[in-house]
Amino acid sequence: EHPEQIPGYTYGTDAASDAPLTMEELDRLKEAVWLTADDEQALREAAGILADQADDMVTAYRARLHEQPWLAPYSGHPDGTPNPEYGAASKPRFDRWIIDACTRPLDQDWLNYQYEIGLRHTKAKKNKTDNADSADQIPLRYLLSFTAVVIATARDYLGAKGASAEQVDRMHSAFTKSVMLHVTVWTRAYVDPANW
Amino acid sequence: EHPEQIPGYTYGTDAASDAPLTMEELDRLKEAVWLTADDEQALREAAGILADQADDMVTAYRARLHEQPWLAPYSGHPDGTPNPEYGAASKPRFDRWIIDACTRPLDQDWLNYQYEIGLRHTKAKKNKTDNADSADQIPLRYLLSFTAVVIATARDYLGAKGASAEQVDRMHSAFTKSVMLHVTVWTRAYVDPANW
Ligand code: HEM
Ligand code: HEM
Repeated sequence: EHPEQIPGYTYGTDAASDAPLTMEELDRLKEAVWLTADDEQALREAAGILADQADDMVTAYRARLHEQPWLAPYSGHPDGTPNPEYGAASKPRFDRWIIDACTRPLDQDWLNYQYEIGLRHTKAKKNKTDNADSADQIPLRYLLSFTAVVIATARDYLGAKGASAEQVDRMHSAFTKSVMLHVTVWTRAYVDPANW
Repeated sequence: EHPEQIPGYTYGTDAASDAPLTMEELDRLKEAVWLTADDEQALREAAGILADQADDMVTAYRARLHEQPWLAPYSGHPDGTPNPEYGAASKPRFDRWIIDACTRPLDQDWLNYQYEIGLRHTKAKKNKTDNADSADQIPLRYLLSFTAVVIATARDYLGAKGASAEQVDRMHSAFTKSVMLHVTVWTRAYVDPANW
């Protein structure tokens, strides 16, 4: 409700990194995921359905990540023991991202904060926002592969409030495109610009 | 039907590159996308539905790519003019990938050929199989962002043969996970191993 009160959430502020991407490049990525005006409308509708489920969604993602012991050092302490403080500190920002992914206009603030989220998964900025001692980078392959879980599990949440099957299809397709657009921009922080 | 007759399709042969990934790493990626035994069963069912639609699917993907003029140099000549020979030569392999993504066991041959497909989108091997003069690398951001189209459009193809909504959900979820698993492995060819 009051995202400006989420600690470390610097969307739209000067504290978010300047993205090394132009608005033209963003327009092209929007075309590449094929995000249409109807998808943008469907995302606004999805926001209403997901808003009070976002916290549960992130809880479920993390439960699934915790089933993979080799991932423990990335969200816990470097030896893999749990760090509930770090998890609690970053969770409201992750929750907020779900709403943002359905509602934020694709402008320069969007671009800057998505670049910032990418950096926060890499050596450049991971752990810094919450002063954690966790492993210093999520390997790109886990970020990408876990995207499948975020996309595939979204369907049930989108269907949980009685929307018709056709409406759920429409929102799920739009959400898929939005998630891939976000994650694609996040990967910029991992890759030599000549290859990205 | 006879994949071994597809020119340049080196699945399971010594001509495919040796993937610099272990089977343990593959098992972890399979966990990361959350590909379950039920998903593997659903993929086998999807194969039956998609087999005779694969060619149409790839035609539709390419039609969509062609709507983005800035992508033309990657599949056409470097100046963006069309290269139908290159398109025709690579299409049967792309078609075959759709079947493979639903049917192939996740073994060393799989790993090697997925790494090979990644290389074939990069400077390392793009154009070589078909002797084309196209731009020498698909930027990673387009590979990733276009994945949204492959995933989102799959639903209608999966539903085109009368499967129940529940069955389509199940196959679509499994297909989403399989696509992300493939694309994740392909990205290895683009990224410094320390970040991947
Ligand atoms: C598609 C997959 C993923 C999504 C959508 C996602 C999303 C997010 C978001 C939105 C944040 C908050 C960023 C901020 O506003 O500060 C975040 C932070 C974080 N994520 Fe991810 N994430 C993904 C994959 C992963 C994976 C695979 C792991 C662990 C193995 C992970 C671990 C973390 C951690 C530890 C943080 C806190 C980073 C920090 O220190 O600032 N994430 N993630
Ligand atoms: C998720 C997105 C994508 C998928 C699933 C995909 C899939 C494939 C597959 C399976 C092949 C055949 C590989 C082989 O067996 O030789 C291929 C080759 C190719 N793809 Fe992609 N591709 C994707 C994105 C793109 C994009 C965005 C472009 C163009 C902008 C593109 C252009 C090509 C070209 C030109 C080839 C031939 C490569 C060569 O010279 O060997 N692909 N793709």
